[in-house]
Amino acid sequence: MSLHCSWLLRQSCWKPYLSAVTFNSVRHFVARSQREFSSNGKLVDVAVNENTGISTVTMQRLPVNSLNLELLQELYSVLDTLEKDRSRGMILTSASPTVFSAGLDILEMYKPKQDRAVAFWTTLQDVWLKLFGSSYPTVAAINGHSPAGGCLVALSCEYRVMVGPKYTIGLNETQLGIVAPKWFQFSMKNVISSRQAELALTTGRLFTTDEALKIGLIDEVATDKADAIAKAEKFLVGMSKISATARKLAKLSCRQEPLEWLVANKKKDLQEFIGFINQPAVQMGLDHYLESLKKK
Amino acid sequence: MSLHCSWLLRQSCWKPYLSAVTFNSVRHFVARSQREFSSNGKLVDVAVNENTGISTVTMQRLPVNSLNLELLQELYSVLDTLEKDRSRGMILTSASPTVFSAGLDILEMYKPKQDRAVAFWTTLQDVWLKLFGSSYPTVAAINGHSPAGGCLVALSCEYRVMVGPKYTIGLNETQLGIVAPKWFQFSMKNVISSRQAELALTTGRLFTTDEALKIGLIDEVATDKADAIAKAEKFLVGMSKISATARKLAKLSCRQEPLEWLVANKKKDLQEFIGFINQPAVQMGLDHYLESLKKK
Amino acid sequence: MSLHCSWLLRQSCWKPYLSAVTFNSVRHFVARSQREFSSNGKLVDVAVNENTGISTVTMQRLPVNSLNLELLQELYSVLDTLEKDRSRGMILTSASPTVFSAGLDILEMYKPKQDRAVAFWTTLQDVWLKLFGSSYPTVAAINGHSPAGGCLVALSCEYRVMVGPKYTIGLNETQLGIVAPKWFQFSMKNVISSRQAELALTTGRLFTTDEALKIGLIDEVATDKADAIAKAEKFLVGMSKISATARKLAKLSCRQEPLEWLVANKKKDLQEFIGFINQPAVQMGLDHYLESLKKK
Repeated sequence: MSLHCSWLLRQSCWKPYLSAVTFNSVRHFVARSQREFSSNGKLVDVAVNENTGISTVTMQRLPVNSLNLELLQELYSVLDTLEKDRSRGMILTSASPTVFSAGLDILEMYKPKQDRAVAFWTTLQDVWLKLFGSSYPTVAAINGHSPAGGCLVALSCEYRVMVGPKYTIGLNETQLGIVAPKWFQFSMKNVISSRQAELALTTGRLFTTDEALKIGLIDEVATDKADAIAKAEKFLVGMSKISATARKLAKLSCRQEPLEWLVANKKKDLQEFIGFINQPAVQMGLDHYLESLKKK
Repeated sequence: MSLHCSWLLRQSCWKPYLSAVTFNSVRHFVARSQREFSSNGKLVDVAVNENTGISTVTMQRLPVNSLNLELLQELYSVLDTLEKDRSRGMILTSASPTVFSAGLDILEMYKPKQDRAVAFWTTLQDVWLKLFGSSYPTVAAINGHSPAGGCLVALSCEYRVMVGPKYTIGLNETQLGIVAPKWFQFSMKNVISSRQAELALTTGRLFTTDEALKIGLIDEVATDKADAIAKAEKFLVGMSKISATARKLAKLSCRQEPLEWLVANKKKDLQEFIGFINQPAVQMGLDHYLESLKKK
Repeated sequence: MSLHCSWLLRQSCWKPYLSAVTFNSVRHFVARSQREFSSNGKLVDVAVNENTGISTVTMQRLPVNSLNLELLQELYSVLDTLEKDRSRGMILTSASPTVFSAGLDILEMYKPKQDRAVAFWTTLQDVWLKLFGSSYPTVAAINGHSPAGGCLVALSCEYRVMVGPKYTIGLNETQLGIVAPKWFQFSMKNVISSRQAELALTTGRLFTTDEALKIGLIDEVATDKADAIAKAEKFLVGMSKISATARKLAKLSCRQEPLEWLVANKKKDLQEFIGFINQPAVQMGLDHYLESLKKK
C-alpha cells in the first residue's frame, strides 16, 4: 500500500474542498436547482437524480442547439452552480431527437454588434474553462449529430457515449473554410492521438459513430438516448466511489496545460475572433451562406 | 452549422493567401515549372498533372538519392516554387527502383570544408521547414528503402504510402552510432506515439512496410510505385475540396511547436552539427566506414 | 547510408562516455559489485551475468517491498554504481512471490520526523532521476502486484515484462484519496496515451496484466518470473548491439522534458510533499488506515 503527496493540493488557483456531498445536501440541491432553473432555464434543463446525485443537463434550444449567447450563458450558469454545489456528476445531452449541438450560432457572427460579439466569445471561453476544468465528473450523452462547437462541448467532458450508427461528430471547421482555435485543438488532442488529430483537423472530417469509436473520439456506442444516459450513469456511479478531491486534482493536473493556455491567452484569442468576424470577406461568406439557407 | 474564428489567421508569420488555383494558373504553372526544372533540375524532376494540379516530385540522384548539398538545394527550390505557385498538392517519390532515399550523404561530413558543411546543414534545415510547414498538402510515395534522412523526408509529408512488403523505413541513426536531432524526433512523434518513438529511436529500428503500417509510421501500403502514386493522388484529390487557406492554417497550427522550435534553435542546431563532424573520433569512424564500403 | 549530428552530444548536463564495456571490465564489475552489495545490500540484491554483462537487481524488503528510506537509498546506490560502471543493462525484479512493489511505505508519512521525511522524498526523487534517466537500458520484470510507487518504478524502466494473468498494476493513488505527483504522471504519459492516462489517473484504476498489455502499460506478458527474466534479457541483449553512447543520447533526448521538469521543481515538489503529510486530515486518515490494518 502506498501514499503520495499531491503537488496540486497547494496550488492557489484550484482550491480543494471536501469530497463528499451528503445525501441531504444533494436533496437540497435538487430542490434548489429545480426552482432555480425551472424559472429561468428555458434553454437548458437540469434534472437531478436523488439517489445518485447525478445531474442530467439537457440543451433545449431547438431545433439544433445552436450555441448562441443566451444558450451559452445558461450553460455557464448551470455549470457554475454544479461546481459550487459540489455535484456528484453531470450528463450533458440534447432535447433534439437528431442533433446534440450544431455548434456555434453563425448569427452571432453575422453583422455583429461589437458588445454582443465580445460577450458571445467570452462566454464560450468561460463555458469551456468551467466544463473542461470542472471538479465534478462529466459525460456527454451524444444523442445526435455533433459537429464543430457541438464536438468541442462533447470533447470537454471526461467521457463520451454516442448514439449510433447514423450520427456524425468532428471538428469540421476546415470544411467550412475556417480553423478551429488552439483550445479546440487541445480538447481534441486530449482525447485522440496527434496523428489522428492532424488528419481530422486538416480535412475537417466528420466521423460516424463507429469511426469515432475506432479512433477514440468517443468511448462507447449506445443504441438510443436512454441507453446513452444509462451508460453515462454507470461511468459516473463508478466515479462516486473515489475521493472527490483526489479525483478533481488528478483531472486538473492532466488538463493543466490547456486550461492555463486559455487563461493566459483569453484576450488575444478574443481579439482574433473579433478581428476575424469583422473581415469583409468573412461577412460576405456568411451572407452567401445564409442566402443559400433561405432558398432551401 | 457553425463558424469559428481562426487564431492563426492574424499571425504575421504565416501569411494566408487565396485558396483556389484556377485551371489556367495550373496550366501556366505546368508550363513554367517544366521549363524551369527541365533546364536546371538534374537531381529533382517535377511533373504537374494538368487535370488535378498535383505535382509529382521525383528525387533522381541515383543510385540511392543520398541527400547531398546539391540535391537538397534543388529540393528546396522545388518546394519554394510550389509554395509560391500555390500548388494543389505534391507527391514526393524516387527514380530509384529500390530506394526512396538512403538519407544524408556522409561524404558531406567526411573531411568537410567548413563553408560547405554549413551550407549543407542549413539547407537541410530549410528543406525541412519548407516541407514540414508547406501550405500545400504533401504525400510521400515511398517506393523503396527509406532509412534515416530518407525517413525524415517521408515523415515531413502529411501522408505516407509505402510499397510493400520488402522495404524498410525508420530513424535508424542509433544503429550507426549517432543520434537523430531533436527535430527529426519531433517529426516522428507527430506521427507515432511517444512510446513507439522512444523504442524506435533508442534501438534505431528499421520497420518493414507492414510493421510501419501497424504502428502508424505509414498510412497505406501499395503494391508498386504506380499504386503508391495512385493512392497518394486519391488523398490529395480529397484535400482539393477543402479551402486551401483553412487547411493550411489547421496544418500549421498542428505543426506550430516543432516549426517554432527549429526556427528558434537553428543556429544552435547548426553549431552542434559542425562541432559533431569536427570531432576526430567521428572522422575516424567515417574513415573506417568508407574503407569498409570500398572493400565491398 | 546516412549520418546525423547529435544535438545532445554537446549538452553539458549529460556527459557522454565510451560505449563499449569490455569483457574484462564486466568481470571486474561483477566481482566488485558482488563484494560491494553482498556486504551492505540487505534490501537490494545485485547479480551480474558474466556472459551478457546484464545485472539483475532484486528488491527484497519482504513481504511487499514497501519503498521506505532504506530501500530507496540502497536502490539509489545500486543505480548509481551501475551508471558509473557503464552497465550493459539492468533487470529490476522482486524477491516476493506475489508483489513487485507495493509502493511508498506509508509509515514514512505517518507521524513523520521532518528530517527523515525530507530524506525520504528527496531519495525518491533521486531514484527516479537515476532510473528514468539511466544511461544503460532497463527492464522491469514485474513478478507480482505493482500499485502506485511500484508502478512508478516499473514505468521508469524502458521496457516492462509482467507475469500474468493474476497481478495488477497502476497509479491507483486516487483510490487512496491522494494524487500522483506530476512526475508520476509524466512517467505514465511516456508509455500510454494522454487519453488512457487521464482515465487511469482520475479513476486510480489498477489494470490486470492483460488489460495493461492492451493499453501499452506493459510490453510483454510472461508465464512466471523465470520467463519474465528471460524476456527481459532478450530485450537487453538486442540493445547490446547498439552504440551505448548513441542509445543513451536518444533515450535522454526522448525523456528530456520530464527529467528537466523534476530537476527544476525538486524543491517545490518536496515542499508540497512535506506540507501534505503535515496536514492533520492526512495524519488522521493514515491513523484510521493503520488501525484498520491492525484489525485484519
